[in-house]
Amino acid sequence: MAGALLTDLYELNMAASYLRRGMDEPATFSLFVRRLPPSRGFLVAAGLEACLEFLSSFSFEEEDLRYLSETLGYDDATIEAFRGLRFEGEVWAVPEGRVVLANEPLLEVTAPIPVAQLVETYLLNQVTFQTTIASKAARCRLAARGTDLVDFAFRRTQGAEAAMAVARTTAMVGFVATSNVEAARRYGLRAAGTMAHSFIEAFPTEEEAFRAFAQDFPDRVTFLVDTYDTLNGVRTAVRVIRELGLADRLGIRLDSGDLASLARDARRILDEAGLPSVRIFASGGLDEYALDELTRAGAPIDAFGVGTKMGVSADAPYLDSVYKLVEYAGRPVVKLATDKVTLPGRKQVFRGPSGDVIGLRGEDPPPGAEPLLVPVMREGRRTEPPGTIAEARARFEADLERLPEEARRIRDPEAPEAAISRALARLADEARADALRRAGVASGT
Amino acid sequence: MAGALLTDLYELNMAASYLRRGMDEPATFSLFVRRLPPSRGFLVAAGLEACLEFLSSFSFEEEDLRYLSETLGYDDATIEAFRGLRFEGEVWAVPEGRVVLANEPLLEVTAPIPVAQLVETYLLNQVTFQTTIASKAARCRLAARGTDLVDFAFRRTQGAEAAMAVARTTAMVGFVATSNVEAARRYGLRAAGTMAHSFIEAFPTEEEAFRAFAQDFPDRVTFLVDTYDTLNGVRTAVRVIRELGLADRLGIRLDSGDLASLARDARRILDEAGLPSVRIFASGGLDEYALDELTRAGAPIDAFGVGTKMGVSADAPYLDSVYKLVEYAGRPVVKLATDKVTLPGRKQVFRGPSGDVIGLRGEDPPPGAEPLLVPVMREGRRTEPPGTIAEARARFEADLERLPEEARRIRDPEAPEAAISRALARLADEARADALRRAGVASGT
Repeated sequence: MAGALLTDLYELNMAASYLRRGMDEPATFSLFVRRLPPSRGFLVAAGLEACLEFLSSFSFEEEDLRYLSETLGYDDATIEAFRGLRFEGEVWAVPEGRVVLANEPLLEVTAPIPVAQLVETYLLNQVTFQTTIASKAARCRLAARGTDLVDFAFRRTQGAEAAMAVARTTAMVGFVATSNVEAARRYGLRAAGTMAHSFIEAFPTEEEAFRAFAQDFPDRVTFLVDTYDTLNGVRTAVRVIRELGLADRLGIRLDSGDLASLARDARRILDEAGLPSVRIFASGGLDEYALDELTRAGAPIDAFGVGTKMGVSADAPYLDSVYKLVEYAGRPVVKLATDKVTLPGRKQVFRGPSGDVIGLRGEDPPPGAEPLLVPVMREGRRTEPPGTIAEARARFEADLERLPEEARRIRDPEAPEAAISRALARLADEARADALRRAGVASGT
Repeated sequence: MAGALLTDLYELNMAASYLRRGMDEPATFSLFVRRLPPSRGFLVAAGLEACLEFLSSFSFEEEDLRYLSETLGYDDATIEAFRGLRFEGEVWAVPEGRVVLANEPLLEVTAPIPVAQLVETYLLNQVTFQTTIASKAARCRLAARGTDLVDFAFRRTQGAEAAMAVARTTAMVGFVATSNVEAARRYGLRAAGTMAHSFIEAFPTEEEAFRAFAQDFPDRVTFLVDTYDTLNGVRTAVRVIRELGLADRLGIRLDSGDLASLARDARRILDEAGLPSVRIFASGGLDEYALDELTRAGAPIDAFGVGTKMGVSADAPYLDSVYKLVEYAGRPVVKLATDKVTLPGRKQVFRGPSGDVIGLRGEDPPPGAEPLLVPVMREGRRTEPPGTIAEARARFEADLERLPEEARRIRDPEAPEAAISRALARLADEARADALRRAGVASGT
């Protein structure tokens, strides 16, 4: 989806007011997550690619302008001003796949304030959602302890576009395949899938269903064994596998019941039948908590299909993300309102041996520290071609290695907190004093 | 989004196997929710319109077929068979906006089994997600006790497509407007919006920001008063409103802090200033629980902006929905596996004075009962033009009236349970006996 109407009405009203008043000095907005959900020890940055695509093609089509004029009643001068708008600003961002923490900017936009404001809604939407999913899927990776993971979420994600993002972000954090065929095509992922219970039920017997499927797909068969009785199903699979001489690349799938116990029994049946290479695949309501229990218990499962709970990030389906004005016309800006204090200025995050420090963009990095934000767009053009999923994954793997144990925990993780550099703290004090003066003037005191 | 690749790989494998074997007798699949989340006393049917659009245009494009052939390795005969597939089946469904309960089919598809199977993923995705959101938003309606609600969710929904569905389904359950401009255009909704903190911060003072905005949009101003100090902000708004003589259609918005207490203080300031017609608008992390507290406490708030928690259905972000084969080639089908027993046959739901009864489609309705499922597609064509949001809303309002008090409760609701008709119970017994025979044959016992 694209288009300048992918925005909230108030963005249009504010942009219209700015344009009318000739207020078009550069504004910097910072997109970050204020607090992590209690069940998250870290986040994984995602959604940048969608943002850059959106910004690259940002403009109002004639039919957009007609709607704004005829239905929403914007005046002709505003419509004219909207017609000319493009995104020609600068974007710094944390590359996809990197680990990020609360208050660390994922993305900073600098552009004339009307357009920098207009793009808020879409940028927030994409970064929030994709980071939510990447972070949840990363926890599944940790809980799987090296066992292969496959994205099975398509049927219950919050829409089909969401399913595409889920397939893409799970690949970024190391899932080996997706059931989602359109996503596999679009992003060059491996498509994976077995059979449904309905397939078994459409045949006179389970055995006939297995035999038919094995004949039709001899090199990619996984028999779903729990339609009638799981362990009987395993024995039926053994008979068909032997009969057709297909032991090498086959597997069975468990999709209900006590997966750990059924996997053990199934493994024993397969081993006793001389089929140690037949793999056991498990699915059905899995998330990182269930994966953690299964892998801790040493259940003999060779791959997991992870669906709904991961695909909507069921225990934390959104993030407390914001897109805040931090500088306008060279002046650092903060918000004072009660529980929502922000940090001013264009920022950088420095990741060093003793943790992360949020500082100002111009600062020298602390010794041994690496800046997380890189320029990804200048004058409205990407600085580099779109990154690949493999690159994002490599960044994720490197950052994951360095994450402290308490952040990686599945139950009750503790998120590290980024420190604030001295220069940023000083700027924040000054900007707060300035904001208080403005508040005082505004209230006439 | 459209296209036959919006599916899971296993659907393609099963369809290919069916096509190869000439298995194309009619199958009926039933889409229903097995259990309601504990925090839901009812569901509101939604997503049908997207399903019918998808089915109407279902086909494989040449580039889809190329991918299936070249990358996924389907053989030429299968590709040829896929090329000819269209959805020419029958669909019965509960119209959007109606209240539904656990185990009640939201939708039943009857078509040759290859195509009826292929469409599973997309139909489940749309019905699950849109019903999830409509049900959550309906609870917000109940909690608001007649106060106007506006959809503010776009920035943190799970993608932009999700935001469109949220705007549409919230309108179905009686939200009066949305902040989402593209959705307002697409669905003919009222767009609403105020201003962001960044707007205030971009001006030298709050007062100047208010004055500028009021001059630019004299007929739709809502001043956001909590950027610096909320009650000072209210007083500033009073001054600007008086100065510009704009009391009639104006409002103020509270977006942080203790909304009930701030609303009372703000109301007093406005009333004392002789501005009783200035409306108070509240937003910021609201969901049905917060709305319930605010309206119970009698907070003088005239409209609520409801965002993220509603837009992702934060306390229940998915439903335990399934798409189950219930009949194939005239034979009723059930699944036996442990915790997932299903009911066979083509069904109907009868809603009468003593509650809902799930029966068979051919049954006579119990006295005074009304059938919920209606034929919406025959031979692949819609039986009627697309319904309007107003029609869905009228159905919702009528069903809401009849919902028992315990289902409408915000905290610890109790969902009514549908009864099973005698004819359906008898068919279920027979189909279970048949399935047990098949399981016995399959396991060689």
